[in-house]
Amino acid sequence: MKKMHLMAPGPTPVPEAARLVMARQLIHHRGPQFKEIMAETRAGLKWLFETESEVLSLTCSGTGAFEAGITNFTSRGEKLIAVGGGKFGERWGKVGRAFGMNVVDVELEWGKALTPERLGAVLDEHDDATMVTLTASETSTGVFHPVEELGRTVREKSNALFAVDGITAVGVHKMAMDKWEIDVLVAGSQKAFGIPPGLGFLAASDRAWERAASSDHPKFYFDLQRELKRQKENQTAFTPAISVVLALREVLAMMKDEGRQGLLERHRLNAEATRAGVKALGLTLLSEQPARSVTAALVPSAFSARDIVARMRENQGVVIAGGQADLATSLIRIGHIGFFDSSDIVVVLGALEQVLGDLGMDVEMGSGVAAAQEVFSGR
Amino acid sequence: MKKMHLMAPGPTPVPEAARLVMARQLIHHRGPQFKEIMAETRAGLKWLFETESEVLSLTCSGTGAFEAGITNFTSRGEKLIAVGGGKFGERWGKVGRAFGMNVVDVELEWGKALTPERLGAVLDEHDDATMVTLTASETSTGVFHPVEELGRTVREKSNALFAVDGITAVGVHKMAMDKWEIDVLVAGSQKAFGIPPGLGFLAASDRAWERAASSDHPKFYFDLQRELKRQKENQTAFTPAISVVLALREVLAMMKDEGRQGLLERHRLNAEATRAGVKALGLTLLSEQPARSVTAALVPSAFSARDIVARMRENQGVVIAGGQADLATSLIRIGHIGFFDSSDIVVVLGALEQVLGDLGMDVEMGSGVAAAQEVFSGR
Repeated sequence: MKKMHLMAPGPTPVPEAARLVMARQLIHHRGPQFKEIMAETRAGLKWLFETESEVLSLTCSGTGAFEAGITNFTSRGEKLIAVGGGKFGERWGKVGRAFGMNVVDVELEWGKALTPERLGAVLDEHDDATMVTLTASETSTGVFHPVEELGRTVREKSNALFAVDGITAVGVHKMAMDKWEIDVLVAGSQKAFGIPPGLGFLAASDRAWERAASSDHPKFYFDLQRELKRQKENQTAFTPAISVVLALREVLAMMKDEGRQGLLERHRLNAEATRAGVKALGLTLLSEQPARSVTAALVPSAFSARDIVARMRENQGVVIAGGQADLATSLIRIGHIGFFDSSDIVVVLGALEQVLGDLGMDVEMGSGVAAAQEVFSGR
Repeated sequence: MKKMHLMAPGPTPVPEAARLVMARQLIHHRGPQFKEIMAETRAGLKWLFETESEVLSLTCSGTGAFEAGITNFTSRGEKLIAVGGGKFGERWGKVGRAFGMNVVDVELEWGKALTPERLGAVLDEHDDATMVTLTASETSTGVFHPVEELGRTVREKSNALFAVDGITAVGVHKMAMDKWEIDVLVAGSQKAFGIPPGLGFLAASDRAWERAASSDHPKFYFDLQRELKRQKENQTAFTPAISVVLALREVLAMMKDEGRQGLLERHRLNAEATRAGVKALGLTLLSEQPARSVTAALVPSAFSARDIVARMRENQGVVIAGGQADLATSLIRIGHIGFFDSSDIVVVLGALEQVLGDLGMDVEMGSGVAAAQEVFSGR
């Protein structure tokens, strides 16, 4: 009878409507019914991405989709500027290297956001770069980078494509692909969409598609030109994760009901309330430029983040995440991306109060919850 | 109130136990519960593949998994012998070309199986090939190739790895990976497993893994050495299609209950009964070496396969497939891979009798069904 509350930064809880549609019998992906569904999800994704470009649904994780975003719009030996500062940002440099690119890593202290000035200096030094990769919301640190300003810097300083990993940013922060002239934007099904992992979403600008024709990285499964052609016909090049597509249609309808502004505002409020709560409990935010997807908080050195995460799960039934790499024992990460409301924030903060108290930290019960409630009340 | 019966060669109907588990709330893929599930699915897949090697679960379609099977165990410029004879067999030659390999296409008339003699002659001419790809059960034509004998030929004649696309063969035909010395064997979740698409499965022999270290094809998402390490720890390198993994555990348990022999025998009987039925209705089998996954039957030239498929769907609620490429108007394909029993075969044949009759073909109602029943009765 133990209740579990999934509050990790993805996968996140799936709304009932999306779960139930996955319990229905499968449909064939080459029939008319699936084409109608694809027509709907294509339109919904374009709306969410704020783009007129096609948003491709790819059967893979977010990493697979972003890899495709690199390998379809660049060529071997070209220069890739990879903005680091976290596990995911740094990953795109590794992908570039794996594909024989000349990678310039922009190293950043984990927890810090990149400034346009710093990026400008890198671009001045490397004006032959053909792509800049940026993880908008860095899930390993809870940092949100100033995407719009960084994009403007890329455009002003170079001819490079601006490729944004929006895996935990699309549907959370404003990501106006066309207006901000983002060239490649990627999202993942198990994040703001709140459906199971299995689909990555990728949109590319006309500038990017123009370069795709001359790209010489080898690819077949991730050949996006083939996908583009097929998806415009409401089909996919290869068998898609049908059940996740069915779930996607459900949540896109829910997102449209809420409205894009409502969706982003709900994420803003949940994030702000969570930050207020953990600060009231005496924890320190890792980042001064926090993302709305995850709250990353450093625990006092007398305590272990691993213990806190384990007790949250075992004693409170609340699944949060620890830190990654060097932050494994010092950082806890509370996910609030997707289908969460103020009650979920109260649950996670209440559980955290109890666990910290049990571990002997000087915590006033209810103080974290109260701080969050103040935010929700708009006080 | 229209009932739909999915009898295409994949995706195929999902058993209730697997559908319901996908309606449950998601679990986190980095927690202890998921590790337990992965331990079970790893063991179940090894059992089904008849191998001691690790069977990797990859979040992609079968095409993605087979691409990984080529790119991880060969290198650029090496010679790949790709056995054609259908849409899927021919695809692996295209993958090899996309990755800069020297591809030798073994062209085969669609509907014919490859003989060991023919393959032996190709290997004599190309004794420097490093991989032979074969689609065991060619879903576009309904042909089953003599995998065991062809594998023996590869081993006797060359040092090439024998890579078998078992996407519609594993769990259908005997595929004794270790005993038959198959080097790479691939399957897909939406086929014999009867769960939604989203996972490809891949096992490789020790010989293949030895070559992986020196493979120079660029890869990151499909880097199987990273996956191998992680999956041995009951984890995946990147976020997996969690809901499909949960469904996989359910169907592997059902398969084990039925027993491997029972599973294969059920497919054999369903296929034999379907073939007897369509022949009794005056259709011609495309292949004399038929696969157990799909029955591919040519329709008399006065009729269009497209009409038959459309009427089956619209009037009878039975979803079958037409032919691919040149066979689009002349071939119908009835899928019986996965969770089907004799009643399903009666349904599809009964519906086919009605449609053919409606179209003016001289068909005796009940004759196809009766022929199938004879097979099921063992007469």
